[in-house]
Amino acid sequence: MNTAQNQHSTAQVISKENLLKHWQGHRSLTRRVIEAFPEKDFFEFSIGGMRPFAALTSEFLAMGAPAMKGIVERQEDPYQEQSEELTTKAQYLEKWDAATEEINTYWNQLTVENFGETFNLFGQYNFPVIQNILYLIDNEIHHRGQGYVYLRALGIEPPFFWER
Amino acid sequence: MNTAQNQHSTAQVISKENLLKHWQGHRSLTRRVIEAFPEKDFFEFSIGGMRPFAALTSEFLAMGAPAMKGIVERQEDPYQEQSEELTTKAQYLEKWDAATEEINTYWNQLTVENFGETFNLFGQYNFPVIQNILYLIDNEIHHRGQGYVYLRALGIEPPFFWER
Repeated sequence: MNTAQNQHSTAQVISKENLLKHWQGHRSLTRRVIEAFPEKDFFEFSIGGMRPFAALTSEFLAMGAPAMKGIVERQEDPYQEQSEELTTKAQYLEKWDAATEEINTYWNQLTVENFGETFNLFGQYNFPVIQNILYLIDNEIHHRGQGYVYLRALGIEPPFFWER
Repeated sequence: MNTAQNQHSTAQVISKENLLKHWQGHRSLTRRVIEAFPEKDFFEFSIGGMRPFAALTSEFLAMGAPAMKGIVERQEDPYQEQSEELTTKAQYLEKWDAATEEINTYWNQLTVENFGETFNLFGQYNFPVIQNILYLIDNEIHHRGQGYVYLRALGIEPPFFWER
């Protein structure tokens, strides 16, 4: 009876493990979108004055793992892109995979309680941790949707959205 | 002490209330993207052979509220768009607002435990309810990102992504 009550009281809308799986599933899809771009177009193709997909990927890289590090270490270092260092798709993909590991490592150090705590991410976004994390995920989905249009405009079939 | 323990054991990665607020925040942004389109372009403008934003909005309308109805009533009616009925932006916005209310109403009938239960959404997507709901949200963010490119290509400034 106590066990049943405990199970009842600890039911989660989404578990910590499943939210990580969800995010990494999206990151895996973004990786395939990066791969789908021809080398030159990854750095140069744009529509309506928007950033090329390389610049968007630099944003994802500057957000995901650094944000998790900041959240876990309670460190408010400012947001900073380091795109100048990366000049090939292969370098972006290598950095992408390193970020995948970093995110997993920091994620494991969070407790369920941490998600409800307020943290001033990048010294600028003072919100509950869950809200900051959802922003990281949503921002990637949003700009990746932009990448899908770039690929279609280039006559390239993007990966299926539902494959993670 | 018991109270403290209970609070501890019921900590949520995200609460039911906050996930709804998150989704409705995104829906509010999508509504402003619909509004930003000129009437004609909403129905006709496209890049790379992709669907115009009206068709994408029809998809959102066929997914959000009908999915919540299906989940709550455990009813596996197939997915069905009804875009043929809607011929003006004003009609889309009216249907959008009705869906906002429907989603709220069905949401209130879900328990936290329901999110972990498996349901065959639209008789086709047999996943935990939380996974089906995240798909509804993500799919809207994804295609709305596409709408941002359409607006920029039309020389129109889209609403800020972070305003919900």
